[in-house]
Amino acid sequence: MRGEEGNSAEENLETKEGTPSSEDERYIHKVSVPPKQKLFQEIKSGVKETFFPDDPLRSFKDQTNRRKFILGTRAVFPILEWGRDYNISKFRGDVIAGLTIASLCIPQDIGYAKLANLPPEYGLYSSFVPPLIYALMGSSRDIAIGPVAVVSLLLGAMLQAEIDSATNAEEYRRLIFTATFFAGITQATLGVLRLGFLIDFLSHAAIVGFMGGAAITIALQQLKGFLGIKNFTKKTDIISVMQSVFGTMQHGWNWQTIVIAATFLCFLLFAKFTGKRNKKLFWVPAIAPLISVVLSTLLVYLTRADKQGVAIVKHIKRGINPPSVKELYFSGQYLLKGLKIGVVAGMVALTEAVAIGRTFAAMKDYQIDGNKEMVAMGVMNVVGSMTSCYVATGEKERKKQTKDNVLEQEPHCQMIVSLSLAAGSFSRSAVNYMAGCQTAVSNIVMSLVVVLTLAFITPLFKYTPNAILSAIIINAVINLVDLHAAKLIWKIDKFDFVACMGAFLGVIFFSVEMGLLIAVSISFAKILLQVTRPRTALLGKIPRTTVYRNIHQYPEATKVPGVLIVRVDSAIYFSNSNYIKERILRWLVDEEELTKESYQNKIQFLIVEMSPVTDIDTSGIHALEELNGSLKKREIQLILANPGPVVIHKLHASEFADLIGQDHIFLTVADAVSSCSPKIMNDV
Amino acid sequence: MRGEEGNSAEENLETKEGTPSSEDERYIHKVSVPPKQKLFQEIKSGVKETFFPDDPLRSFKDQTNRRKFILGTRAVFPILEWGRDYNISKFRGDVIAGLTIASLCIPQDIGYAKLANLPPEYGLYSSFVPPLIYALMGSSRDIAIGPVAVVSLLLGAMLQAEIDSATNAEEYRRLIFTATFFAGITQATLGVLRLGFLIDFLSHAAIVGFMGGAAITIALQQLKGFLGIKNFTKKTDIISVMQSVFGTMQHGWNWQTIVIAATFLCFLLFAKFTGKRNKKLFWVPAIAPLISVVLSTLLVYLTRADKQGVAIVKHIKRGINPPSVKELYFSGQYLLKGLKIGVVAGMVALTEAVAIGRTFAAMKDYQIDGNKEMVAMGVMNVVGSMTSCYVATGEKERKKQTKDNVLEQEPHCQMIVSLSLAAGSFSRSAVNYMAGCQTAVSNIVMSLVVVLTLAFITPLFKYTPNAILSAIIINAVINLVDLHAAKLIWKIDKFDFVACMGAFLGVIFFSVEMGLLIAVSISFAKILLQVTRPRTALLGKIPRTTVYRNIHQYPEATKVPGVLIVRVDSAIYFSNSNYIKERILRWLVDEEELTKESYQNKIQFLIVEMSPVTDIDTSGIHALEELNGSLKKREIQLILANPGPVVIHKLHASEFADLIGQDHIFLTVADAVSSCSPKIMNDV
Repeated sequence: MRGEEGNSAEENLETKEGTPSSEDERYIHKVSVPPKQKLFQEIKSGVKETFFPDDPLRSFKDQTNRRKFILGTRAVFPILEWGRDYNISKFRGDVIAGLTIASLCIPQDIGYAKLANLPPEYGLYSSFVPPLIYALMGSSRDIAIGPVAVVSLLLGAMLQAEIDSATNAEEYRRLIFTATFFAGITQATLGVLRLGFLIDFLSHAAIVGFMGGAAITIALQQLKGFLGIKNFTKKTDIISVMQSVFGTMQHGWNWQTIVIAATFLCFLLFAKFTGKRNKKLFWVPAIAPLISVVLSTLLVYLTRADKQGVAIVKHIKRGINPPSVKELYFSGQYLLKGLKIGVVAGMVALTEAVAIGRTFAAMKDYQIDGNKEMVAMGVMNVVGSMTSCYVATGEKERKKQTKDNVLEQEPHCQMIVSLSLAAGSFSRSAVNYMAGCQTAVSNIVMSLVVVLTLAFITPLFKYTPNAILSAIIINAVINLVDLHAAKLIWKIDKFDFVACMGAFLGVIFFSVEMGLLIAVSISFAKILLQVTRPRTALLGKIPRTTVYRNIHQYPEATKVPGVLIVRVDSAIYFSNSNYIKERILRWLVDEEELTKESYQNKIQFLIVEMSPVTDIDTSGIHALEELNGSLKKREIQLILANPGPVVIHKLHASEFADLIGQDHIFLTVADAVSSCSPKIMNDV
Repeated sequence: MRGEEGNSAEENLETKEGTPSSEDERYIHKVSVPPKQKLFQEIKSGVKETFFPDDPLRSFKDQTNRRKFILGTRAVFPILEWGRDYNISKFRGDVIAGLTIASLCIPQDIGYAKLANLPPEYGLYSSFVPPLIYALMGSSRDIAIGPVAVVSLLLGAMLQAEIDSATNAEEYRRLIFTATFFAGITQATLGVLRLGFLIDFLSHAAIVGFMGGAAITIALQQLKGFLGIKNFTKKTDIISVMQSVFGTMQHGWNWQTIVIAATFLCFLLFAKFTGKRNKKLFWVPAIAPLISVVLSTLLVYLTRADKQGVAIVKHIKRGINPPSVKELYFSGQYLLKGLKIGVVAGMVALTEAVAIGRTFAAMKDYQIDGNKEMVAMGVMNVVGSMTSCYVATGEKERKKQTKDNVLEQEPHCQMIVSLSLAAGSFSRSAVNYMAGCQTAVSNIVMSLVVVLTLAFITPLFKYTPNAILSAIIINAVINLVDLHAAKLIWKIDKFDFVACMGAFLGVIFFSVEMGLLIAVSISFAKILLQVTRPRTALLGKIPRTTVYRNIHQYPEATKVPGVLIVRVDSAIYFSNSNYIKERILRWLVDEEELTKESYQNKIQFLIVEMSPVTDIDTSGIHALEELNGSLKKREIQLILANPGPVVIHKLHASEFADLIGQDHIFLTVADAVSSCSPKIMNDV
């Protein structure tokens, strides 16, 4: 029935179009109703556009079954794809990259494990298995896999609230594996169901604020190691930490520790500075942490400073990852808690990783399928949870490096980096990229170096002072506080800035979870505001054109006497239909007051420019009905200009098009205005 | 700094505008940057548009303080406004209306109280105090206040899950007053904070489904009274109820009850039919319930049918509302439960009432301030909770009547009614409207009649059979199932239909709360989908115009060789920026394949028509940067057409405008295309 209406309407329009009487008279086109899609097709295209906008099966089209199988296997294991043209020169690049990241990550991993309240070896475990899995399944060539600061902090804070890691180390560890398992399941599920777009709901601004807050929180936590304080608060908010720090100032600080920490922090910062100034020395900041560890360990060993109260690592368990399948909680009260924490950690980890993959991909201009990445990350974490790893992801901290060096050739990417990345500081992914990594083999190399460390070198870490780990972490996270990005956000969008500061202050003054909650809430509030209060604009004619534009943007645009032209800048849905109706009526009332004051023509036509109205639902149609009703009472004719394909269909289906009259729907505002002019005195 | 940039940009544009060499050459306007608002003004106008779109203080402008006080008092108590020109003729109308509603509502109230698992007198209590308060503070003249079926059912179901009303009547009653109190607080708070727009988030379609489901659930519950079943399930889902009904068929039904119920249901339906056919007899269905009650009570009294197993009301407590302030829970476990239930019930009650007020207002064309209404409703429920009333609101069930009679003169409103109202059936508000009510005094009259009933007549209800109450309720709710609206929804928007059916089936097969939850979730999912997957369109030139339109809607539109024109149909925010970027690149890839096949010009320009892009945030700018980067690699120039005032500001603030070049931003697509044409072979 609907199809018929559409057809007959189209015919009407065609017959009404008439013949232009002369070349001068403007040829007035009518709004056409596109051919109606079948219901099934409509649903199919809707689903496709929502879940498969990237058309992942495109390459499978018109292939034999055997070929499809090969393509499918390659899609799951991209290593089969790039592995074919792997050669020795690429391998050299990968080895250098892998070694460089390994020297960067090993000290960091030990520190991150402490953030998660785990013994140091678990950080190393998590840099062994996950990178191997990712190398097989991941499609980003530039991403470096391992534990990261923010996720470690988040896990540590959320788990500590459930189980005390000091008294119940065993249960705590089991819960963190359970959470890791569910983080992996969450990631893989999102990927398989192609719900990857859900992570887009955490806005960039919220991430900048959250990361900045997390970085400061992490740095504050490091004051324990940095100052050599023994009794340190378990809380993460700035007030508790400051109380803890200054409460112990008299007899809790250890000056030897402070000297070591401060010296090496200066060294690290100087190394970073050097790397920044001279791009060829990018490897200096990359190996500086390892050098610091070696030097400080030697120093402590030689001076026996540990006897003076300098806290040392003492013991890192030797040997590779023990299996942990049996340690997962699949029943009992911890199942649900692990699930909850896992879902949150999994999402946050994805937010970091996908942004990275996307940015590097944009630079080298290869497309990354975010959903496939998620599956790879998910599998890697599930496997990780069974081999004593906790949540690993791609690293985020790498802005400055990337920006200053890589983007020299590509100045247009500068904004990308400064904007997209919450991050600052030195980072593995950036090192990976800089060190000339060619393929995911660099991850394999790094992973092997970690294994060798675990198998042979860990005993050497015995005398490594905790202070040096604190200095390394402070150095790593400090640039996550991205003032430049925050300033840009302030310049561009004030509401975004509120989201950013909300998340930042939430993390610092309350807790990591609270900051995350604030970030998500503000992001959602923004979406809701956007759809509830869409913009509308009054249009005027730009002199010597037939173009109608917002009179507040173009002061030279003139209103047409007797006609009010309003543009609605959003789809009309239940959430905004009443507002739009009332807003249009308010424009009308204001305008009528003006015309009364200046003795102009009474408004006789209201033209609603519908170009931006991409869709309308039943509530929207209803609002138009009400609007039309109110206008009729004031003897004003409602005219629509340029409704889109979906809208014009629905206007016909609901018979609203007949209600206002088919001849009151025009292709352009100019056409609509010229249809009014015979009826009113028009002095334009 | 930002302001300066804006200014200098404007100057540049002006100098570049040049002089048109002849009348024929099109005068190319540039996109102007509107004068920058100060930060404070920007925030102020944002807040105003979000929370005070209706400018409630408009009438207070430029008034003396004394006048402001008077206006303020009148705003809170509209009775002071309309009370001044109240006269005897209006009073006559109000008395008739009040009496008619009273005769309709008294039997209904008794039935509704049963839905809420309360003794019958509480339904009457709730029709006494709230209407009085509303008459003082409410601004809708046509709304009739009292308990309603759906809210009663909702309260009954949610409270029964907490406390068993049969064994703990006292606590149950206390909890329902507590819930009523918080429902009122919720409503008043939403009104005062001007968050009334929140209730717009329950979409029309979801309401239609929810109401339909609730009506069927209510009707099924009435089978207990209708069939005379003694042991009836406490659950509300259709499966439990059906088991209950058919399980007792052998020896649980009472034929005398069924005969009475069926007879009077037929009578009521016939009365309704009569009222519909002949508008002058609108009072027939209004007093039919009262007649049924009187007749059936007499019948039972005379035949002593109650001895045959016909269940009767037995006892309605005589006397007006006892105070219940001390019964409210302000501490203990029930405080939170009451709060939770109150918030839900308060929101649902508002959804009903505001839609009614708005619709009637649209018909008589007076504006209603939804937020003020909410405050009035809130106060009325808070006072009600202290005087033994449970949640009262405006009635919704009134479609058919209103539609067929009132709208005769206003055929354009037909859609309004059939769409806006979930409802069907006879209703108080419609009766109020039909019976010629002039002001809220009709509510006062009704309220007085209810008091008289409570004070003197209740003993006469002793022999009223429960069956007749069931028949009255079935008759009242049956048309809430609005098949016509559901059909329209199906025709207009398939996604809306899913929401509608989801809510409907949720209520019927699970529970009222589950249905509500489904309705809210689907409504939100729709909003999120809308903002995550905005539409984009390829544009082509419509022959013999300079108008560019969607080539899928206008098959006659032709693409410009070497130029790809894409329109983005939404603000670009973090939630959709990546999708938009990728979608545009996909259009490009598809187009490039096409041009390759047909040996056409390679794409050299990508024009993004920005008219519908009303806003952009930092993530959006970032996506544009990435897009520009990818295009540069393919040697394609990005051109923007007609960015709006907000967008052009942000493009300048972020320096993106300089990045692509100010001369690549045009006022119209036509201008943009003509700027490309010198550079490519253009055969249009």
